[in-house]
Amino acid sequence: MNFASDNTAGVAPPILEALTAANAGFTPGYGDDDLTRRVEQRLATLFEREVAVFLVPTGTAANVLSLAHCAPPWGAVLCHAESHVAVDECGAPEFFGSGLKMVGLPGEGCKISSAVLKDALEAGPWGGPHHVTAAVLSLTQATEAGTLYRIEEVRALTDLAHAHGLAVHMDGARFGNAVAQSNASPADMTWRAGVDVLSFGATKGGALAAEAVVFFDPKRAEGMASRRKRGAQLVSKHRFLAAQIDAYLHDDLWLTLARHANAAAAKLARGLATAGCVPVWPVEANEVFAPLPKSADAPLRAAGARYYPWATRSLPPEMKIPTDRVLVRLVTSFATTDAEVEQFVGIVRDNQK
Amino acid sequence: MNFASDNTAGVAPPILEALTAANAGFTPGYGDDDLTRRVEQRLATLFEREVAVFLVPTGTAANVLSLAHCAPPWGAVLCHAESHVAVDECGAPEFFGSGLKMVGLPGEGCKISSAVLKDALEAGPWGGPHHVTAAVLSLTQATEAGTLYRIEEVRALTDLAHAHGLAVHMDGARFGNAVAQSNASPADMTWRAGVDVLSFGATKGGALAAEAVVFFDPKRAEGMASRRKRGAQLVSKHRFLAAQIDAYLHDDLWLTLARHANAAAAKLARGLATAGCVPVWPVEANEVFAPLPKSADAPLRAAGARYYPWATRSLPPEMKIPTDRVLVRLVTSFATTDAEVEQFVGIVRDNQK
Amino acid sequence: MNFASDNTAGVAPPILEALTAANAGFTPGYGDDDLTRRVEQRLATLFEREVAVFLVPTGTAANVLSLAHCAPPWGAVLCHAESHVAVDECGAPEFFGSGLKMVGLPGEGCKISSAVLKDALEAGPWGGPHHVTAAVLSLTQATEAGTLYRIEEVRALTDLAHAHGLAVHMDGARFGNAVAQSNASPADMTWRAGVDVLSFGATKGGALAAEAVVFFDPKRAEGMASRRKRGAQLVSKHRFLAAQIDAYLHDDLWLTLARHANAAAAKLARGLATAGCVPVWPVEANEVFAPLPKSADAPLRAAGARYYPWATRSLPPEMKIPTDRVLVRLVTSFATTDAEVEQFVGIVRDNQK
Amino acid sequence: MNFASDNTAGVAPPILEALTAANAGFTPGYGDDDLTRRVEQRLATLFEREVAVFLVPTGTAANVLSLAHCAPPWGAVLCHAESHVAVDECGAPEFFGSGLKMVGLPGEGCKISSAVLKDALEAGPWGGPHHVTAAVLSLTQATEAGTLYRIEEVRALTDLAHAHGLAVHMDGARFGNAVAQSNASPADMTWRAGVDVLSFGATKGGALAAEAVVFFDPKRAEGMASRRKRGAQLVSKHRFLAAQIDAYLHDDLWLTLARHANAAAAKLARGLATAGCVPVWPVEANEVFAPLPKSADAPLRAAGARYYPWATRSLPPEMKIPTDRVLVRLVTSFATTDAEVEQFVGIVRDNQK
Repeated sequence: MNFASDNTAGVAPPILEALTAANAGFTPGYGDDDLTRRVEQRLATLFEREVAVFLVPTGTAANVLSLAHCAPPWGAVLCHAESHVAVDECGAPEFFGSGLKMVGLPGEGCKISSAVLKDALEAGPWGGPHHVTAAVLSLTQATEAGTLYRIEEVRALTDLAHAHGLAVHMDGARFGNAVAQSNASPADMTWRAGVDVLSFGATKGGALAAEAVVFFDPKRAEGMASRRKRGAQLVSKHRFLAAQIDAYLHDDLWLTLARHANAAAAKLARGLATAGCVPVWPVEANEVFAPLPKSADAPLRAAGARYYPWATRSLPPEMKIPTDRVLVRLVTSFATTDAEVEQFVGIVRDNQK
Repeated sequence: MNFASDNTAGVAPPILEALTAANAGFTPGYGDDDLTRRVEQRLATLFEREVAVFLVPTGTAANVLSLAHCAPPWGAVLCHAESHVAVDECGAPEFFGSGLKMVGLPGEGCKISSAVLKDALEAGPWGGPHHVTAAVLSLTQATEAGTLYRIEEVRALTDLAHAHGLAVHMDGARFGNAVAQSNASPADMTWRAGVDVLSFGATKGGALAAEAVVFFDPKRAEGMASRRKRGAQLVSKHRFLAAQIDAYLHDDLWLTLARHANAAAAKLARGLATAGCVPVWPVEANEVFAPLPKSADAPLRAAGARYYPWATRSLPPEMKIPTDRVLVRLVTSFATTDAEVEQFVGIVRDNQK
Repeated sequence: MNFASDNTAGVAPPILEALTAANAGFTPGYGDDDLTRRVEQRLATLFEREVAVFLVPTGTAANVLSLAHCAPPWGAVLCHAESHVAVDECGAPEFFGSGLKMVGLPGEGCKISSAVLKDALEAGPWGGPHHVTAAVLSLTQATEAGTLYRIEEVRALTDLAHAHGLAVHMDGARFGNAVAQSNASPADMTWRAGVDVLSFGATKGGALAAEAVVFFDPKRAEGMASRRKRGAQLVSKHRFLAAQIDAYLHDDLWLTLARHANAAAAKLARGLATAGCVPVWPVEANEVFAPLPKSADAPLRAAGARYYPWATRSLPPEMKIPTDRVLVRLVTSFATTDAEVEQFVGIVRDNQK
Repeated sequence: MNFASDNTAGVAPPILEALTAANAGFTPGYGDDDLTRRVEQRLATLFEREVAVFLVPTGTAANVLSLAHCAPPWGAVLCHAESHVAVDECGAPEFFGSGLKMVGLPGEGCKISSAVLKDALEAGPWGGPHHVTAAVLSLTQATEAGTLYRIEEVRALTDLAHAHGLAVHMDGARFGNAVAQSNASPADMTWRAGVDVLSFGATKGGALAAEAVVFFDPKRAEGMASRRKRGAQLVSKHRFLAAQIDAYLHDDLWLTLARHANAAAAKLARGLATAGCVPVWPVEANEVFAPLPKSADAPLRAAGARYYPWATRSLPPEMKIPTDRVLVRLVTSFATTDAEVEQFVGIVRDNQK
């Protein structure tokens, strides 16, 4: 019953097999190999347009290289106040961005609303030269609350951003979960809705350590190869990054894995709801945030369940977590089993006061 | 006949198998797992002392995180003028070091002599406050010329460095080749000879993408966990970094692989010498730098040989490459076969003018 | 009627005269001169202890060099959300601090309360290594709202900060106004109350362009000379920075100038109050924030008055600015005249609806 | 007899008077004042074209803001190995440039020759992505050796630079000395010869603390206002920076002052030559580098002479400083008197062995 994170799972078997397959013979290092070319082509096909692709080993790297590339050092990145880039990267965006500023915006379910963004852009102050310049809007899809932006919501936000001169980044650490859930095409979810650069995540989805920065306008990527190298993110035996993404995309494996994880989350949510423990936000990806009865906490942990308590300011208005409950985050993955979900729900059901 | 680099080889099979073995079940992310603990213990045992260990996915990362941690932003890193950190990392040391300065020193065979270091430290100017402060000496072992520092040479250099208040970093991207060749113990080669922090390389030696920063005084490592994270170098499914190093160290695999590569280089050097193509520097690790007859270049490439021409200012005094020859770098690896070496030498022999 | 800022005033005549007096003959550059020594001694005497002093030409420089020196690159600076360092320096703290993070705390009248600080320090998350480490508390004295921290308030905040391992910085751009108002000794206001480093402002007080960073523990200043130089803040003809501070401190000129400014603000506040325009915060230094009748705005500007409208989230609870009024900031200085104040108040009085 | 530096002199009286004149009344801060507008207009007139101007308080700031603005963080600045930006700014270029790399080129008399620059640009390696990208050529005019680039030399160098995609910066800390000596127009010396951005120095020439960054293509200056602010280089009472430059340019004061300094250097050089102490480089500005008899050193210092010994690798070929002599740098300024020069020469003449 490991619901601590989607990175506590291992590697999806086809991806592991792809590493072995890629191991034959010699290939040039640093991305100058056929497998890397194939991945680039795959992503172009997936997104139905020419793209510029940069593979990196961590999600932090994908995000912060993207943000640094789109913002000047005196720029501000507007993002949700509880987004991963704002709070969980130990200042990596500021470091890679040579001192840029992360500006956190509020919003229910870790989503930024158009109204909030509009206010922030109009109120400022921005630039002038005493203030940082609003430079990038960063959206997380699926969000850190396991919710989704609808395509029209993305479009409204990117329209606002572009009208004010900002570029738009999408943190897609769980992009597969979002696409699998919404049935939207990757292109509709991103550049057709105004996204300029995407951190296309694979690690949480089932890879070992591989993410892709995808620029939808290749011209915007000028200099990115140097930025990646000096960011110490250019993997020498690069074919093994490529092999992971290649297998991840092959036969829509990424969507198959994501659907599994999403289904496990949905099942978990339904089960908990029937046990009187209704999730605080819509469960639209592979995360469930539920107000667990404290009476269930000890038995769950005794049975080996792993998960984290969660602090947030993004609850729906007026919602409060009762004192006899604790809000927890439960993350499912491609490796989550029905048995785990059922056992977890069963213990909760049996331990309501 | 791929002698382009040791990173054109794949992964040594036992390391690949270790990835599969590590894939079972769930483990906490970010290094909070048993396999990571075991690797830390292995390195402590190997180096015969308590150490602080930080695994990262690239050699650039290991080097630049080390340098940044040991030098203030107004510090200078003294290194060989042709060292990898000085010329081949696209400014990564300056970036991670918040603007530190790399100061390249000359030296035959890519080795810094005590006399050169002494002059540099005494001549300065350093500090004051108009000048950067000499803060770190970085030695590469084995060097970028495939040569070795003798232990007494390392000691003389570190004594000088410490007397002037510098910390000592060792870039051990090919540390295995150095240890295998010298038969010195890892401890004698490093901290007992005055090295403070080591980039312990595994990728060139046969891993997929894994390096270890090893601090010999754990107190010096304070803050390094944060530095690694904000450097976007903390791999989430960390067990797979650990698995690589674990397998690399198990049963001295790293030395077995290095001995193979070194032996191939020695065989190649002997063969080339008998073909009238004597290496310009002693072949003490897995690299051969030889003045290839230009007449052999086309037939070699036609036969599929891969290698790079090499520019250097570190030749022995008075040595000049004749105009009908080209200096090339030939790198062997754990995957190099006798047949490749023999074929290469054969073509050179057959194509002398 | 210039109430736009205290930096719209010129230079206090004795300071200008001191520049001329300092101009005779040759002196060594970069602070190696007698006048600089004398200023250091004056500040030691003023603060009743050994101090380390670094003169710089801008207040931004004093603040950001101080913060960068006390926080690691992965550190967070806790400060009021509307403080100058948080919002008005175009990211200079993040730049000089190699990517540190500014964390803004709420608080009425631009003051941080102990309760708010305690919550922030305890709630975190800090460190770990996913989160930045709380490293510095920065207090502005007098605040950007023209209010003062009482000495016991400073002490309570610094106790909390030190208990959590933070250093304490005081932004004293208007330190003279604070000392003049409170009658506390500079020592009681700073290090005896737990402040570790002070930006001792002189420019707003009447200098041309001179500020002093004062470390109360000289050991903490190690490396600061290099940091100032590489921050491009070491003025070559340094005697002219020293001359300004020397004159500023001579015969308590700084307090005389500050008392004048404070008295002008107090008179302005009283006058506005009698005109039905009560300041929103206590007027404890040289700034008045008042809800001006919009009906008075045009006549004031027509008469040549200069001031800025003000947006804030730091009003007392439940206080709202009526729609027929605009909150404005009025700043007095050593150069403000009674006539200006009276004219301003008169126009307001005559133009209430 | 103060020949230690041109910054040991004070302020030229007309500039000091201009500060007093500028002190009347209130003006907006941060450069939004009439005097700043007038200086911008003066520089446009002087350079015979539209320019973008940014005033800063230090020469280091002018240089490093310029370099950072013209180079990406992965860029290299090619400059003379003994230039001020390379060795005397404590890493400020690297800091402001977010980790850019300074690449020092050799050259007699601190001048870069076209042949050396051509070799450096062609040999590389540059970019790719393992290597930094050659981004800026920085020339010092007059040089740190007191020599001048002829206009046709500047043109040859800028042609090469532009052909390889580099921008050209001119460090004009002693620009007045160069213009006064060469009788070239400021426009011919700079943009008409291919210079893109100039650090127009005034401090060494006689100002208190004021320099101007001059962009010859205003479009290139986009974002510079923010860069200056976050570099902590935006002086609040900005009129006093403007007043200095305004007086410096009024009635060609800058050239009058520079001619005085240059004439003193010429006189000093002639005198020393007749005393058997011929300068090692042509004396083309306000600096004399001469191999002083060691026998003269003690009497000179006893008589109060101030100057620095000088280490260099830029002597003409085969020139060696005899062991009974010491190479010294002697800098004249607007404040140097004939009497000082004559006294100095006299002591040398009387103390040859």
